[in-house]
Amino acid sequence: MPELLEALAARLRILEDREAIRDLIASYGPLADAGEARALAALWTEDGIYEVVGFAQAEGHSAIAALIEGEAHRTLMADGCAHLLGPVAVEVDGDTAIARGHSVVFRHSPAGYAPYRVAANRWTLKRRPEGWRVAHRRNALLDGNETARILLAPGHPAS
Amino acid sequence: MPELLEALAARLRILEDREAIRDLIASYGPLADAGEARALAALWTEDGIYEVVGFAQAEGHSAIAALIEGEAHRTLMADGCAHLLGPVAVEVDGDTAIARGHSVVFRHSPAGYAPYRVAANRWTLKRRPEGWRVAHRRNALLDGNETARILLAPGHPAS
Amino acid sequence: MPELLEALAARLRILEDREAIRDLIASYGPLADAGEARALAALWTEDGIYEVVGFAQAEGHSAIAALIEGEAHRTLMADGCAHLLGPVAVEVDGDTAIARGHSVVFRHSPAGYAPYRVAANRWTLKRRPEGWRVAHRRNALLDGNETARILLAPGHPAS
Repeated sequence: MPELLEALAARLRILEDREAIRDLIASYGPLADAGEARALAALWTEDGIYEVVGFAQAEGHSAIAALIEGEAHRTLMADGCAHLLGPVAVEVDGDTAIARGHSVVFRHSPAGYAPYRVAANRWTLKRRPEGWRVAHRRNALLDGNETARILLAPGHPAS
Repeated sequence: MPELLEALAARLRILEDREAIRDLIASYGPLADAGEARALAALWTEDGIYEVVGFAQAEGHSAIAALIEGEAHRTLMADGCAHLLGPVAVEVDGDTAIARGHSVVFRHSPAGYAPYRVAANRWTLKRRPEGWRVAHRRNALLDGNETARILLAPGHPAS
Repeated sequence: MPELLEALAARLRILEDREAIRDLIASYGPLADAGEARALAALWTEDGIYEVVGFAQAEGHSAIAALIEGEAHRTLMADGCAHLLGPVAVEVDGDTAIARGHSVVFRHSPAGYAPYRVAANRWTLKRRPEGWRVAHRRNALLDGNETARILLAPGHPAS
């Protein structure tokens, strides 16, 4: 490929990577609230980790799907819930990326809606032949604890 | 156009489509809270539908603008409100696209702010000569009802 | 550069601008909640303004960093807080851009989480040799006041 074209292709690839990562993460909430356990688990790599600090650590597709099929999540869905994620700040470094952002779970009750969980998220993502996947999502409640705050600080994707 | 260039242009077009759709949907909340009824209605195709399950179904620009100019919305604006939409997961298929995501309406009262409506959204979008427009937005409260959950499940844009 | 290539490069630059602006704004919330005062201030131009209508107006990096290091913000962090921003609608015009969107501050207390501030935001951005930076962020509570609503209306980037 001529040099100029190659430079354009490289810039395009950066945007495509960022778009794929953003869309992957934007898919999480809708899949969680639709109860699509398998499709949700497939956002992760085969050995990917979903860590909810102080609550659960699921490793691999079956364990992640089990969180969505489990009683806690099914009760939440029966009550009415929304897993709203904010936009993410993304840093890509080759085949690894870090995305940082917030998530809020709204829960419905006869009294109306309330924010039930408000959390910090740090997503480590890996490029796979089939596209970007989540290698590790760390989620911690923003309740004044330093654990959650650290997740939101910038950091090298390799860390 | 040489083949390599054409391939780059095609990849660029995919990103442009996704960017246009994202920006269109990100415009909804600000226009709703600014009370810009006409500009908001113009996000839809001429015969576009805004369906709020169990509350209203507006078809066409005048009917959609009337929702924003109507008493329910004007009361909400006078109280103070925010139509916050989350990021959307987007699937483009030629000249049609589906976007799925959450919306939360916060309402102000003397007691402070509260989430007043928490809903699922499924946007069907069409490419028009003037750009992407909303053909159908379906919105349903996430109150435990299956109707809302189905809107968030992945689906073929043509459906 | 051949004409066709130049046209592609121009389209690519538009997407890169929008991506950079979106990522800049998506970085604000995580940096605020991580307490990263300097990195947060560096999102602004050297003489950039962060205006919180009726509360504070900070001009320049030191003044903006001082907001994050100040008692009000540190108390909020100790209680537990999330500065969740919604997606932004972006209009780019050469080296200036306007982005409009919502922000919600959730605050933790022994009773749980509550939306503490719900605000309208209008970001004026400038292209600098080092990238896009915030020249002026105006933030106003959506409490029924017209000031906030005006921030969300579309407008020419130059205004």
